[in-house]
Amino acid sequence: MNIEDLRKTAHAVADAAREAVLPFFRSAGLTADNKLSDGAFDPVTEGDRATERAMRDVLAQRRPEDAILGEEYGTQDGTSGLTWVLDPIDGTRAFLSGAPTWGVLIAVADENGPIYGIIDQPYIGERFEGGLGHAAMSGPQGQRDLRVIGDRPLSESILFTTFPEVGSAAEGAAFAEVSRQVKLTRYGLDCYAYSLVAAGQIDLVIEAGLAAYDIQAPIAVIEAAGGIVTDWQGGPVHAGGRAVAAGGREQHAAALEVLSRIA
Amino acid sequence: MNIEDLRKTAHAVADAAREAVLPFFRSAGLTADNKLSDGAFDPVTEGDRATERAMRDVLAQRRPEDAILGEEYGTQDGTSGLTWVLDPIDGTRAFLSGAPTWGVLIAVADENGPIYGIIDQPYIGERFEGGLGHAAMSGPQGQRDLRVIGDRPLSESILFTTFPEVGSAAEGAAFAEVSRQVKLTRYGLDCYAYSLVAAGQIDLVIEAGLAAYDIQAPIAVIEAAGGIVTDWQGGPVHAGGRAVAAGGREQHAAALEVLSRIA
Repeated sequence: MNIEDLRKTAHAVADAAREAVLPFFRSAGLTADNKLSDGAFDPVTEGDRATERAMRDVLAQRRPEDAILGEEYGTQDGTSGLTWVLDPIDGTRAFLSGAPTWGVLIAVADENGPIYGIIDQPYIGERFEGGLGHAAMSGPQGQRDLRVIGDRPLSESILFTTFPEVGSAAEGAAFAEVSRQVKLTRYGLDCYAYSLVAAGQIDLVIEAGLAAYDIQAPIAVIEAAGGIVTDWQGGPVHAGGRAVAAGGREQHAAALEVLSRIA
Repeated sequence: MNIEDLRKTAHAVADAAREAVLPFFRSAGLTADNKLSDGAFDPVTEGDRATERAMRDVLAQRRPEDAILGEEYGTQDGTSGLTWVLDPIDGTRAFLSGAPTWGVLIAVADENGPIYGIIDQPYIGERFEGGLGHAAMSGPQGQRDLRVIGDRPLSESILFTTFPEVGSAAEGAAFAEVSRQVKLTRYGLDCYAYSLVAAGQIDLVIEAGLAAYDIQAPIAVIEAAGGIVTDWQGGPVHAGGRAVAAGGREQHAAALEVLSRIA
């Protein structure tokens, strides 16, 4: 495996995504399609689709032997054993609202899960990457290494999730119990919250109902920065579902103690 | 009144705040003091204090005849009839979490309320200003004029607030009723949400328990962009309390219809 080529390709994919997506952000007349059959609100913009196409174009040119799993255009088979897992706009509701907390997610996975990931915020110009021996960010204040916050008790922990409801009623009740035990609970950051775990700013992100493309890049970035990402039973979560991401073993174990009571 | 000098001074104050506050953002070992007597969590960092001192230094040099009302250092009398209303870090919980959704708030008020305001996000490098004939923003994508979204029914509106609880139980219930009627409710952006109203990205921000320094800059910016900011009865809110900010008269009236039932 050519690590340098993989990283360079991932950055080229992220660069292409930035260029494709920014003209759509805060532009007038965004078309919010509804892709959920039950009629729930889930905007998918033209920007989402155009961005994934731009990302796939880079991969077709540079890594035609790799498979692709993308949110918008599904699966494309490969022969290398590696899969690129793409979410062109994670946080479409934030995107639609003009908030700079959505992100472009890019992961490279082998048969055991993600080995490298990028969380990119094109508007701010911030990029968080982790895996293949790197854990670093670049942004308005330059470059720095990523390192999680380390062990803290729940009573000193900062917890994020996107929506207060967090999935089903039972899932929401489990989340609320963890929330009662932490110092501070905040809402609404979508994938940006995972970046804050990797950057040592917060302790926990708890979400439910994730797809593989929502969580693989965060797993790679956070693990490379020294953190832990599992499902609510402590098992692997790269296929999606309920995730708990932690900046230390202590917070992770304490959150699992509550969350694992959910079957 | 020298409008150009007021605007230049406001930008100089915002520039000084950026320089003072950024070294504290995402720095290790932030000291979170607790300034609420009831023990509730409200971090005030050294950055908060250092930033307000830097802002006051600019005003002492350029506008010694004006009064100042600041979150950290209180009131300083003046002789001009104008008051600078300063919040060095609005959204201290976001700041403490590393999220780029806090802001520096600067307003200039006369006896009737704010006549000009700036909402600045130093990390992203975004500045929203409104009043004295201007309504504009500058940021990573350059400069543009600010214009609210205009009339939309609640059923098509995007609503923001910082915490799902929104004040007292009665206030929270009123908010929840508005939330049930809108297309999308999002949480957690602090003062950044007001910028999104001014920029025509979202329809409504509803908050309770505000201080004057929390709301005066948003009032000036949003009104200059064509929007409306009142209390929950439709009256002036520049002294603080319960606020509803709207990007159109239709959303504002429909939200007030629900919120005004609260005494």
